[in-house]
Amino acid sequence: MSEHGKTPVTVLGLGAMGTALVEALLTAGHPVTVWNRTASRTEAVAAKGASVASTVSEALAADTNAIVLACLLDYDSVHEVLDPVAAELAGRQLINLTNGTPGQAREMSAWAEELGAAYLDGGIMAVPPMIGTPAAFIFYSGSGTVFGRARTALETFGGVNYLGADPGLAPLHDIALLSGMYGYFVGVIQAYALVGSAGIKAREFAPLLRGWLDAMGGFLERSAEQIDDGDYVTDVVSNIEMQAAAFPNLAKAAADQGISAELLTPLQPLMDKRVADGHGAEDLIGVIELLKK
Amino acid sequence: MSEHGKTPVTVLGLGAMGTALVEALLTAGHPVTVWNRTASRTEAVAAKGASVASTVSEALAADTNAIVLACLLDYDSVHEVLDPVAAELAGRQLINLTNGTPGQAREMSAWAEELGAAYLDGGIMAVPPMIGTPAAFIFYSGSGTVFGRARTALETFGGVNYLGADPGLAPLHDIALLSGMYGYFVGVIQAYALVGSAGIKAREFAPLLRGWLDAMGGFLERSAEQIDDGDYVTDVVSNIEMQAAAFPNLAKAAADQGISAELLTPLQPLMDKRVADGHGAEDLIGVIELLKK
Ligand SMILES: NC(=O)c1ccc[n+]([C@@H]2O[C@H](COP(=O)([O-])OP(=O)(O)OC[C@H]3O[C@@H](n4cnc5c(N)ncnc54)[C@H](OP(=O)(O)O)[C@@H]3O)[C@@H](O)[C@H]2O)c1
Ligand SMILES: NC(=O)c1ccc[n+]([C@@H]2O[C@H](COP(=O)([O-])OP(=O)(O)OC[C@H]3O[C@@H](n4cnc5c(N)ncnc54)[C@H](OP(=O)(O)O)[C@@H]3O)[C@@H](O)[C@H]2O)c1
Repeated sequence: MSEHGKTPVTVLGLGAMGTALVEALLTAGHPVTVWNRTASRTEAVAAKGASVASTVSEALAADTNAIVLACLLDYDSVHEVLDPVAAELAGRQLINLTNGTPGQAREMSAWAEELGAAYLDGGIMAVPPMIGTPAAFIFYSGSGTVFGRARTALETFGGVNYLGADPGLAPLHDIALLSGMYGYFVGVIQAYALVGSAGIKAREFAPLLRGWLDAMGGFLERSAEQIDDGDYVTDVVSNIEMQAAAFPNLAKAAADQGISAELLTPLQPLMDKRVADGHGAEDLIGVIELLKK
Repeated sequence: MSEHGKTPVTVLGLGAMGTALVEALLTAGHPVTVWNRTASRTEAVAAKGASVASTVSEALAADTNAIVLACLLDYDSVHEVLDPVAAELAGRQLINLTNGTPGQAREMSAWAEELGAAYLDGGIMAVPPMIGTPAAFIFYSGSGTVFGRARTALETFGGVNYLGADPGLAPLHDIALLSGMYGYFVGVIQAYALVGSAGIKAREFAPLLRGWLDAMGGFLERSAEQIDDGDYVTDVVSNIEMQAAAFPNLAKAAADQGISAELLTPLQPLMDKRVADGHGAEDLIGVIELLKK
């Protein structure tokens, strides 16, 4: 604890995200030490009260009680930064908010544990301007001890959601939501491209598209029950056999309008396979079974 | 007009959808004549007051003032049903609610016009149980005269949205919304598959996923402005170069968990191409330019 009673944090990495995190911590009165490979990027936060370290070792030594928070480009850069100071991590609490896969998080957690450091992983569900607002939230997983001690500091970034001891859970949830987002935008882009090909403004179509996709939320929740129960019996009288038969219309209509349907066509063979496997009378959502290898 | 002042309608096709449409018309008091290839499917609506015709000719002749509404499997089946009675369509008003492409609708409209019939196309944005409730809506395009006369009858099905004289507009809007829906479900399925691989119940993840996707609505609207203005400059500090670089994590994380990412991977080459074309600092949504052929 600092003299103010606020947990001190040492932040490694002042990209767009690291800078936003440091600003939130400073605003809340946490003592913050920063290090960045390119030193010039430390100036803005130094002006707001951060202590600047010129090497990673110096940053770690500045306050041995501080939580160490890394927010770098990728896991390779985290190893590049931390491997040379591995011996100095014993007894420290390390939080890594760098994007990666569940496998990378588990590997880094094991690596930290071997060095005698406690490890917490995080997946940031926000862009930098959202940090420090209630619109931001971050998934955490790994050491519950680190999460407990850091919690007040982490809450300065936005909502917190601690998922459990497996450090892979935060990146897994992060990537699951990002996958949902990319699917959403694949649909949105395809829809706008189609109506645009007929001279219809995207602005004009947006309220219709938004209302339609918002209404899908109910099906999203119903689908969850079907998946958990492994029972894809349809209750909306629109089964996968009908949908598989009508699906070529999407590509045909797109082609007529001079638009590629390449972002959606990978769904066709999965639908066809479900029908061929005898699930034609069930719901579309059953294609999830074919993603499991 | 019938003696009750309600527009008479002759419905060809009593599948799940045709039956729902007839029930809505009967409930509202419209005189309805029905025909279906498989005669037994007419029994239920006959019991509710529909007149049954045993041939298409008989159906057309029953009330020459009636609007003719077709709701069959596909455009081929509509031609199979109407081609033999083409001469009897002169002077009639024809509404086709069968699913098809904009090209098919334009072709059928021209064919009807040549026969002296006025043609209105429709795209039903509902499943049969929704017909007759405010949750259903239908896009219409083609003859404004037919739409005007049929409007009260059509409003018995749910909301109406007349898009203009080009008969291809209704199927185009229909397919654009369906494309949006399929993208949405691609994302949902991928997300559930990922968390499920770690033993997390879909029911447990559903509220998070729904909240996250509902929050995408704002980006959907912002994207429309970017598309209309042809200006994909990012305002969220998360540009396509960063996203293209992080995107392989989605497939890597999925593979680690034994899940295929085949439904989302087609986005990668488009993102890479935007970066290679010098648009790396712009928003993801700019990939729409690469769908135009
Ligand atoms: N921005 C977002 O919208 C967002 C959202 C969620 C999660 N994230 C994640 O947050 C992390 C940081 O993102 P960002 O937006 O801050 O990225 P950024 O602006 O590109 O910054 C990257 C940071 O990593 C450092 N770095 C890169 N390679 C390094 C190396 N080999 N050794 C030492 N330092 C290295 C950079 O140092 P230099 O200044 O010396 O180059 C910089 O501090 C990423 O994992 C990103 O995926 C970002
Ligand atoms: N159900 C939905 O959720 C939904 C939603 C939106 C749009 N739609 C569209 O609505 C239309 C009808 O769908 P539906 O759900 O009613 O389908 P359905 O239950 O499969 O019924 C198909 C209808 O088409 C008839 N038919 C098929 N081939 C024929 C042919 N060669 N000659 C004469 N009649 C033929 C069938 O007659 P028989 O009874 O003799 O087989 C039956 O009346 C389709 O274009 C569908 O895409 C459906």
